Amino acid sequence: MGMVGGGSDAFIGAIHRLAANMDGQIELACGCFSSNPEISVSSGKSYFLSDKRIYKNYQEMFADEAKLPENERMDFVTIVTPNHAHFEPSIMALERGFHVVIDKPVTFTLAEAKKLREKIRETGLVLALTHTYSGYPAVKEARERIQHGDLGKIRRIYVEYPQGWLSSKVEDKGNAQASWRTDPKRSGKAGCMGDIGTHAFHLTEYITGLKTTELCAELNTFVPGRLLDDDGAAFLRFNNGARGVLMATQVAAGEENAIKIRIYGEKGGLEWAQMEPNTLWLKWTDRPVEMIRTGQGYMSTIAKHNTRTPAGHPEGYLEAFANIYRNFSLTLRARLEGIQPQAEWLDFPTIEDGVRGMQFIETVVQAGYADVPKWVKFVE
Amino acid sequence: MGMVGGGSDAFIGAIHRLAANMDGQIELACGCFSSNPEISVSSGKSYFLSDKRIYKNYQEMFADEAKLPENERMDFVTIVTPNHAHFEPSIMALERGFHVVIDKPVTFTLAEAKKLREKIRETGLVLALTHTYSGYPAVKEARERIQHGDLGKIRRIYVEYPQGWLSSKVEDKGNAQASWRTDPKRSGKAGCMGDIGTHAFHLTEYITGLKTTELCAELNTFVPGRLLDDDGAAFLRFNNGARGVLMATQVAAGEENAIKIRIYGEKGGLEWAQMEPNTLWLKWTDRPVEMIRTGQGYMSTIAKHNTRTPAGHPEGYLEAFANIYRNFSLTLRARLEGIQPQAEWLDFPTIEDGVRGMQFIETVVQAGYADVPKWVKFVE
Amino acid sequence: MGMVGGGSDAFIGAIHRLAANMDGQIELACGCFSSNPEISVSSGKSYFLSDKRIYKNYQEMFADEAKLPENERMDFVTIVTPNHAHFEPSIMALERGFHVVIDKPVTFTLAEAKKLREKIRETGLVLALTHTYSGYPAVKEARERIQHGDLGKIRRIYVEYPQGWLSSKVEDKGNAQASWRTDPKRSGKAGCMGDIGTHAFHLTEYITGLKTTELCAELNTFVPGRLLDDDGAAFLRFNNGARGVLMATQVAAGEENAIKIRIYGEKGGLEWAQMEPNTLWLKWTDRPVEMIRTGQGYMSTIAKHNTRTPAGHPEGYLEAFANIYRNFSLTLRARLEGIQPQAEWLDFPTIEDGVRGMQFIETVVQAGYADVPKWVKFVE
Amino acid sequence: MGMVGGGSDAFIGAIHRLAANMDGQIELACGCFSSNPEISVSSGKSYFLSDKRIYKNYQEMFADEAKLPENERMDFVTIVTPNHAHFEPSIMALERGFHVVIDKPVTFTLAEAKKLREKIRETGLVLALTHTYSGYPAVKEARERIQHGDLGKIRRIYVEYPQGWLSSKVEDKGNAQASWRTDPKRSGKAGCMGDIGTHAFHLTEYITGLKTTELCAELNTFVPGRLLDDDGAAFLRFNNGARGVLMATQVAAGEENAIKIRIYGEKGGLEWAQMEPNTLWLKWTDRPVEMIRTGQGYMSTIAKHNTRTPAGHPEGYLEAFANIYRNFSLTLRARLEGIQPQAEWLDFPTIEDGVRGMQFIETVVQAGYADVPKWVKFVE
Repeated sequence: MGMVGGGSDAFIGAIHRLAANMDGQIELACGCFSSNPEISVSSGKSYFLSDKRIYKNYQEMFADEAKLPENERMDFVTIVTPNHAHFEPSIMALERGFHVVIDKPVTFTLAEAKKLREKIRETGLVLALTHTYSGYPAVKEARERIQHGDLGKIRRIYVEYPQGWLSSKVEDKGNAQASWRTDPKRSGKAGCMGDIGTHAFHLTEYITGLKTTELCAELNTFVPGRLLDDDGAAFLRFNNGARGVLMATQVAAGEENAIKIRIYGEKGGLEWAQMEPNTLWLKWTDRPVEMIRTGQGYMSTIAKHNTRTPAGHPEGYLEAFANIYRNFSLTLRARLEGIQPQAEWLDFPTIEDGVRGMQFIETVVQAGYADVPKWVKFVE
Repeated sequence: MGMVGGGSDAFIGAIHRLAANMDGQIELACGCFSSNPEISVSSGKSYFLSDKRIYKNYQEMFADEAKLPENERMDFVTIVTPNHAHFEPSIMALERGFHVVIDKPVTFTLAEAKKLREKIRETGLVLALTHTYSGYPAVKEARERIQHGDLGKIRRIYVEYPQGWLSSKVEDKGNAQASWRTDPKRSGKAGCMGDIGTHAFHLTEYITGLKTTELCAELNTFVPGRLLDDDGAAFLRFNNGARGVLMATQVAAGEENAIKIRIYGEKGGLEWAQMEPNTLWLKWTDRPVEMIRTGQGYMSTIAKHNTRTPAGHPEGYLEAFANIYRNFSLTLRARLEGIQPQAEWLDFPTIEDGVRGMQFIETVVQAGYADVPKWVKFVE
Repeated sequence: MGMVGGGSDAFIGAIHRLAANMDGQIELACGCFSSNPEISVSSGKSYFLSDKRIYKNYQEMFADEAKLPENERMDFVTIVTPNHAHFEPSIMALERGFHVVIDKPVTFTLAEAKKLREKIRETGLVLALTHTYSGYPAVKEARERIQHGDLGKIRRIYVEYPQGWLSSKVEDKGNAQASWRTDPKRSGKAGCMGDIGTHAFHLTEYITGLKTTELCAELNTFVPGRLLDDDGAAFLRFNNGARGVLMATQVAAGEENAIKIRIYGEKGGLEWAQMEPNTLWLKWTDRPVEMIRTGQGYMSTIAKHNTRTPAGHPEGYLEAFANIYRNFSLTLRARLEGIQPQAEWLDFPTIEDGVRGMQFIETVVQAGYADVPKWVKFVE
Repeated sequence: MGMVGGGSDAFIGAIHRLAANMDGQIELACGCFSSNPEISVSSGKSYFLSDKRIYKNYQEMFADEAKLPENERMDFVTIVTPNHAHFEPSIMALERGFHVVIDKPVTFTLAEAKKLREKIRETGLVLALTHTYSGYPAVKEARERIQHGDLGKIRRIYVEYPQGWLSSKVEDKGNAQASWRTDPKRSGKAGCMGDIGTHAFHLTEYITGLKTTELCAELNTFVPGRLLDDDGAAFLRFNNGARGVLMATQVAAGEENAIKIRIYGEKGGLEWAQMEPNTLWLKWTDRPVEMIRTGQGYMSTIAKHNTRTPAGHPEGYLEAFANIYRNFSLTLRARLEGIQPQAEWLDFPTIEDGVRGMQFIETVVQAGYADVPKWVKFVE
């Protein structure tokens, strides 16, 4: 694995390395960790890289790595830069023959996402998008149950993602995470909706298997002087007639990272909340609520495949993140070994999810700032 | 207390009697409990009433009771009929000089609610509306904290009321509760929004002290053949600039009676959920979440006034209900005794809340069935 | 109903009146509410009693009430005095032909309890003991499930009752509740174990249907200068070979009233905690945990009989208390009407439970202060 | 890192590798993973080891590794064999100059533990014992708060560890984990108490900083034919006068891995439960319960040092486990670099905790099978 971004001063890069390390299947082989060469070098050294695998920039890295023998060079690159710097290194990596892992949202614009999809179709390479929350075993169990028809036809969905860390203007007080996320030049058209709304959106389509067809939204900016939305809500309509409410906010003072989803069908409902991620609640019209738990013998094959510890030994965010890396690496290894990847190895977000996420951003922004409310359709 | 409706075959009438009995301050003195005279008589007897205080109809009851000496006749009447049968007995009771307790929504139409308000202003009598959830001590504490400014300026409100009992067409299977609630002739313009949406709406305005100025909504009927909404959601805008999402549904399969509210201000947030009603969560940007508990010494005067048991001895729905009756009866007693009622005695929903609720129903229905989404203003 | 004790300055008397009032089946007819005649009279008036039914002392009350016509005089008396003043009025009431409701522990000594049992056997009258926690519908459901064999043979029981209100010497600071409970002359041999340990003990035997045969205990007094135990723990052995741990403390600083029980058999376990009383957890070795909820259609007949509100409308401590009064009054009414009481009407704690509780106190005190630990057998 | 045990068919070895990998600071360099050489080789290959670093047995491994240049050979060995096979490889590793990580309980007997302690004192090397639960940041926060005196003098401790996986005789049905744990030849004197009781014991002494001075216990074997305890409870007495109850069971049918501790002092209490490990509850006599959360800015330095993700991104069992490895490796690195390790790097269980654990096992077994109950003192 090579890395673009993720210097020792960055947040999400560290998470990616923890997740990639965990299963002992992926080795950090090289990287250009910062536009500041000193930080890049010192970061690389602290990650135990030799000097020659610490690069000045990604152009150099892709070029040099491509010249290395196949069994020495990196197999894929992880791109953990802010949104505006996703597209160019991704395209270049693919052109040089490297697979890609990338943080969400996949690109700065929908147009870029589509071009990236074209490039992936053209090269036949693999892109994994780190929509972490779909990596939890209990989320995969939820998907299984719905696919199996346990809830009956889905009618009503509530998905919410309240955070409170942007309740005041921390971007002016040296918070680097806040700084780029609230900057339209680095974050894109949407603030809150791009940063966390896309997670809520992805989780919904991932679990239900439904597609959103249109939405009506209101976006808000509560903190004075902020340039992007820090809050919003949307009514969603799905291709089977189901209705949803999506709520995302970063000004819910006192909330941590409370993404949660509830889905109701004709026969029952389910509930999953990320802050207690090992529990999935199944609710029924005619019998007791069931508490489904990660690590139990009754879980589905796919949930078990994504579980590392026995029931009662809680798994968390890093394990969910690591599941994306593990499935991605199992898929790559299968390709290398010329074998057919198992269905559960292919279960990670791809460029298709990335394009959907960018469509969501385009759509929710178009709806959310309309003079009068309106239903805006998702378009390809 | 006299009662209109509430025969032994009815649901909410029994709740009213339990609530009224609890504190030993109110005695059931008379009633006409059913349009079926046999049920009325047998019900009245089972409530230990003498034959002469069991009436054939409310007209007779009001007339006869008014003739009794002041210390014998009922002081007020409780009206627990379906919505379409609220207005006439209420008006007549007021005209005969009786105070009124009535279940929500206060009337069948907004126009009736306004007429009732006129009559109350004219007679100077008192009407209590049983928006039960505002009777919980932890809800009153929430109101106190916000009034005191603890959360700072309110920005974002989520209020939800999921139930699942109407997930299938139980109104066709002999469920009397479902039958009238899904019948536009007895329930009114709205189904779910009238039955439970009004509770969520009232709770929001009660706790925050804000007024909703406009809303944008989508109402749905998921169960085929049903004539009224059984689900809906609305974006709310408040007079201080705050934004809300109100969700109410009766087809959330597997949910019981999960009304819950979350309110976020510039400095902190709060959360209250009816199914664990003795806990109020206060969330802060800079310090630990606090778990506020009914019965504790640190609670506000008004919360304590509405609490009967020490902390850890849970109070429930009936106690919240009884708080409305108790405050109403304390207010009446003060009038009888010619003393000034204390502020906390006056803390029960009145005709003003009833009119607001009917305005909500009118507005949400107007918005929720519009061809294109729109913001609909609350009008007097 | 007549009442001995329970003046307007007392705690538990008020709870008894709330519980007795609730269902509209019991009327407070007379009482002697305090040894202070002024408080007694003013209390009685505030409860709407006529002067002639407010008595100077219980001797007078029993004598005078016995002279009244059968349909006027009280049917039973509720005794809500401190423990040392339970026995004499109970015996006298029974001798005068009145049934009795009494707070736990039933008497001051085991010897008194046995004499009371003799008197009850002799008179054929009924005594109800207010072990409130066995009045909750979810507790009754737990009992049903175990009787039905769902958990298999019971092996391991944990029952705990932590409170924190006696963490400092509040009995010296005007806390009347603490004052008599920590006074051996009014409370008896045990402090914490008598006040709340007996509840834990009763709950255990009630739910499991097992009998404790012996115990080994350690009692502690943590607050300096206090004369009775304020904390303790015991190992319990049951007649089927099961083992238990009973923990009770009143110095668990910050705890409210957290009585909780967990019971494990060969096939599964259950858990119930009073502070969320409407939920019963069933745990299984081979399938998901089930959340059993008061008010649901799948509950047993006896649980439903003891439930007043639909699922999701929480019932609390007062409703559990009222269940004892209701079942007691249904039983009395059946006797008056000469009919056979239904099994669920007879489901309230009686003198037999009172004797068991006093045996527990004797046994735990004997074991808990032993120089060396020892198993002490329960003896008749 | 080298590894003894932990072949691809083992459980805890995999956990150790996941934990060691996570932070990218430790590399698996060699191992002998099974007494079955085929499994050892295939395991080693699957961990990407070269053939020459996969050893037939630990004797060979220690000998050969010791001959390698310092910068090539393993720095420490992790021993993940059953209890009876802890002592010999540990002693040999130390004699060869290798630091040691070892699973609990540290040895088969107390005598071995003391010898191991001697060897460590003699060699000056470091041993880390994987009492995982003390690795959680919220546990470290609890320790900090108590050390800081927030709760006042500690009085009452409840520690419990219920599991249900040994509710039936799974050791006869091919469950390898159960097989050695229930076998006195491989597990030692104690079953449940050695396997999980030691964790509860360690957690208690770690958080409170107190020492247990004596205990009174009852050990049980509920599953017929099992040779070791599968359940037990103990009263604990501490060196400051505090009292504790320790409950451990592996026959609590339906429980997962529910280790939990509650500690009460004169001023307040705290509660931590492993199955929701990111929350620490602080309870107070005079103000609201506080919910302390991993990742929050108000946490102590030591808690933050042991946290990888922001609040609301749950950390779990593997992260707690990894904290032991990380602190151990930071300590080793400091030694290699000749610098003074920071206080928080030294915060991992050592041989001293190992000896305490073995003392606990000796003491609880001596007390738990006594003919009559008795207090048994902890002796060196």
